[in-house]
Amino acid sequence: MHRGELTVSTTGRGTYDITRDIAKIVAASGARDGLATVFVHHTSASLIVSENADPDVRRDLDAFLARLVPDGDPLFVHTAEGDDDMPAHVRSVLTQTSIGLPIHAGKLELGTWQAVYLWEHRTSPHRRKITVTIVS
Amino acid sequence: MHRGELTVSTTGRGTYDITRDIAKIVAASGARDGLATVFVHHTSASLIVSENADPDVRRDLDAFLARLVPDGDPLFVHTAEGDDDMPAHVRSVLTQTSIGLPIHAGKLELGTWQAVYLWEHRTSPHRRKITVTIVS
Amino acid sequence: MHRGELTVSTTGRGTYDITRDIAKIVAASGARDGLATVFVHHTSASLIVSENADPDVRRDLDAFLARLVPDGDPLFVHTAEGDDDMPAHVRSVLTQTSIGLPIHAGKLELGTWQAVYLWEHRTSPHRRKITVTIVS
Repeated sequence: MHRGELTVSTTGRGTYDITRDIAKIVAASGARDGLATVFVHHTSASLIVSENADPDVRRDLDAFLARLVPDGDPLFVHTAEGDDDMPAHVRSVLTQTSIGLPIHAGKLELGTWQAVYLWEHRTSPHRRKITVTIVS
Repeated sequence: MHRGELTVSTTGRGTYDITRDIAKIVAASGARDGLATVFVHHTSASLIVSENADPDVRRDLDAFLARLVPDGDPLFVHTAEGDDDMPAHVRSVLTQTSIGLPIHAGKLELGTWQAVYLWEHRTSPHRRKITVTIVS
Repeated sequence: MHRGELTVSTTGRGTYDITRDIAKIVAASGARDGLATVFVHHTSASLIVSENADPDVRRDLDAFLARLVPDGDPLFVHTAEGDDDMPAHVRSVLTQTSIGLPIHAGKLELGTWQAVYLWEHRTSPHRRKITVTIVS
């Protein structure tokens, strides 16, 4: 059992690649084969695994969610923190709060095109805490 | 390795806070650091982590999903159990069947504003079984 | 700690039941109680737990996602591999890349109506790699 933490300082809405940070925690754990479970401690930021090559994929993901869950939608009652407040909660539950990743031969075993992203759903900058729990 | 079960008797569609029940299972396990994986044994109810403060957030989450996946949508062929049957399956796959939560210093380590909810997607009451698997 | 791999040769878009394959890996591991975490090594195929009885449920799930994330949507910039390329990435992040399943008394402990599916989001056939990590 090993535990690592990371903090991401976001500059506002968008995806932030945290694959390398997770890989470092896996390396520091000394685990050979096992499971790394990533967890984000927030309800307006989330986790995804997505394509790591073409930045247009991340642009399109954000364009899609922005259209699906529009900021300022009159459907929403919870608007205390602004137009992007409740959309951020919806976007979070439609994606992931935790993801379990395999560790093999001492390394995070992702597909060739996979990266792990923190998805900041608020339009303003935030500090986001992530815990990686390693079982091996 | 420790295993706990809980049953939630729902009164129909909506979110039910199960954070305290999960925390009790974590406490009973005696785990200091580890991972608690929550799993719901159904395909028309699911799990989310969301805001624990303003009940309007949960109202808005349900309003959003009700608009995104309308009951009685003529798109659906599977209507054997009623207008809310197939929407419940869709709502379940768009949210989570399992969530992995970190345990630290003997406690469930959630963010300040996070709670874990069972989301009942059927309009009528159901008994829902949840298993919590603890690795430490 | 036990690790198993499976490969699914898909014939194009749709859901593929992998429950039996996962159960075999659980049986081979000799685990009595524990956790099986399933992970798909791709960004245009994903995992869900859904109903195992009426095939119309799977037809309706695909019809819903096809309407929600239309192929050829002019919103998308990333179209290098065709009309279904970016929709496949969106469909993947709206569902799951990993799912944690409980093992009890030597068996995968799913609900009566639950099956685990690989969801192929591309319209053409692909070979998909899945890793099952077992902790017990």
